[in-house]
Amino acid sequence: MYLVSFFHEGNLKFGVRTSDESAIIDAVEAEKQLFSQAILPNALQGVIGNSEALERLKEISQREPEVNGNAILPFSEVVLEAPIPQPKRDIICLGLNYREHAIEYTTAMEEEQNLPKYPIVFTKATTTVIGPDQKIKSHRHVTSKIDYEAELAIVIGREGTNISKEEAYDYIFGYTIINDVSARDLQKQHSQWFLGKSLDTFGPMGPFLVTEDEIGRPVKLDVQCRVNGELRQNSNTELLIFDIPTIIETVSGGVTLKPGDIIATGTPKGVGLGFEPPKFLNEGDVVEVEIEKIGVLRNIIS
Amino acid sequence: MYLVSFFHEGNLKFGVRTSDESAIIDAVEAEKQLFSQAILPNALQGVIGNSEALERLKEISQREPEVNGNAILPFSEVVLEAPIPQPKRDIICLGLNYREHAIEYTTAMEEEQNLPKYPIVFTKATTTVIGPDQKIKSHRHVTSKIDYEAELAIVIGREGTNISKEEAYDYIFGYTIINDVSARDLQKQHSQWFLGKSLDTFGPMGPFLVTEDEIGRPVKLDVQCRVNGELRQNSNTELLIFDIPTIIETVSGGVTLKPGDIIATGTPKGVGLGFEPPKFLNEGDVVEVEIEKIGVLRNIIS
Repeated sequence: MYLVSFFHEGNLKFGVRTSDESAIIDAVEAEKQLFSQAILPNALQGVIGNSEALERLKEISQREPEVNGNAILPFSEVVLEAPIPQPKRDIICLGLNYREHAIEYTTAMEEEQNLPKYPIVFTKATTTVIGPDQKIKSHRHVTSKIDYEAELAIVIGREGTNISKEEAYDYIFGYTIINDVSARDLQKQHSQWFLGKSLDTFGPMGPFLVTEDEIGRPVKLDVQCRVNGELRQNSNTELLIFDIPTIIETVSGGVTLKPGDIIATGTPKGVGLGFEPPKFLNEGDVVEVEIEKIGVLRNIIS
Repeated sequence: MYLVSFFHEGNLKFGVRTSDESAIIDAVEAEKQLFSQAILPNALQGVIGNSEALERLKEISQREPEVNGNAILPFSEVVLEAPIPQPKRDIICLGLNYREHAIEYTTAMEEEQNLPKYPIVFTKATTTVIGPDQKIKSHRHVTSKIDYEAELAIVIGREGTNISKEEAYDYIFGYTIINDVSARDLQKQHSQWFLGKSLDTFGPMGPFLVTEDEIGRPVKLDVQCRVNGELRQNSNTELLIFDIPTIIETVSGGVTLKPGDIIATGTPKGVGLGFEPPKFLNEGDVVEVEIEKIGVLRNIIS
């Protein structure tokens, strides 16, 4: 299923993309039509870790032909929001997790050029999250080096500690796209990356939260980033240094993962910092992150 | 006021320490006795950023002599919990923010010995938080180098972006103590500090959330840490490299601060890592962090 959060007539709702990909089934509205008893929560986040609600969504999706027109909303009539607009804790992010990006990054930052032996893990504040087509603020009073980072993000579906690689996929609810927007000057100045990664609006997410069953195992998805139509990043998640099972095993080794936790898996080569001279983002630039089977996440710098 | 969250007969409640420091006034119970209309939320976190509720708490505290005995609970009858047991986002932490600690840390980690020119900011997962006397898990499958870090923590009381140093104190609700427990091996291996700082139970907090008016400006508080009674850290917050107004100005420059956000201000010299040989924590060790005007936060490694 392709799940979305969206605004319709001013209300935040959630739903499932229709099979012809042209519209969204308003989940709560469709449930009223198809079932006598309502069990769905009022936000997509409430479905994660709630197997009964997930089952209900599946039934709604399967019974799409029975859904009455007023619960089917064309994309043109809604405004998409980030699938999880207010995560319960900071987004967990992997750093330097593609070989060639690790090299371009450390070169540009004048750091030692070793590939990470262990996953590099930092966080991005919950307050960074914005939806598709929302504006990335340029924060000119604190940064002049805004950069994009196209990333596949994992959304955790079950609570777990010490999850083994073998079991890792069973803990995944689904996947979405995150643009891990970064202020390179702050990232370098402050040594730990949190601040440079956490400016308000620096966490575009979406458009879809795609359930795990749609993606397959292992995850092999093309990842691209375009700026004003120019292809900058072009890779595939099979090139991750630390793959998805390893990431989940490592993080959950001592940090209990919870339903709704978001883990951004790292970005491939081609960030603005890596060009000579660097190609940082400017007001008006359009950034599109595209991940195969998920969609295109588009935002403008303002 | 000295505010606390606590368990009484199995229920999580909150209250104010009595003027003779021997007991807690159960806030919700006292409100029932003194006021015809109840406005208090059911958790201390709900008071932060809620000026009406804070005003009500002050009135209850001032009218202590009128409070009936069943709303006055001796400390012996309650179990203290962290003042904010489930923060809404990760705890923002300052690193290497005392001169002599920055030197001991970089020396022990074999890093370049420069004092930070800009604040070092990282986070600690919300799921690390435990209360006074709760057990710090040793996580022996992932770490053999557990260390303590005594820290004054700021609790933000008002939403703000771009807060100037001059206004910074007006955004503070109060202060508490955090033991920024750290797995030094993970902290080094993973390069970014999040994982080594975020193992479950690695965020003891409390015992009191002390309102800003009790502490004074600027903040000059003795900070100590004892392990099994042996004094290890002994400093004062006036020795912070980046003081509280500077921290708030820096973080809020691009990251909107919200009521209930917690900022741990960094730890002074004397961590286990700094000794030759290092003195890491072992099962059974008792760690006490004491901060003047706030109290003693005591936990055992298990």
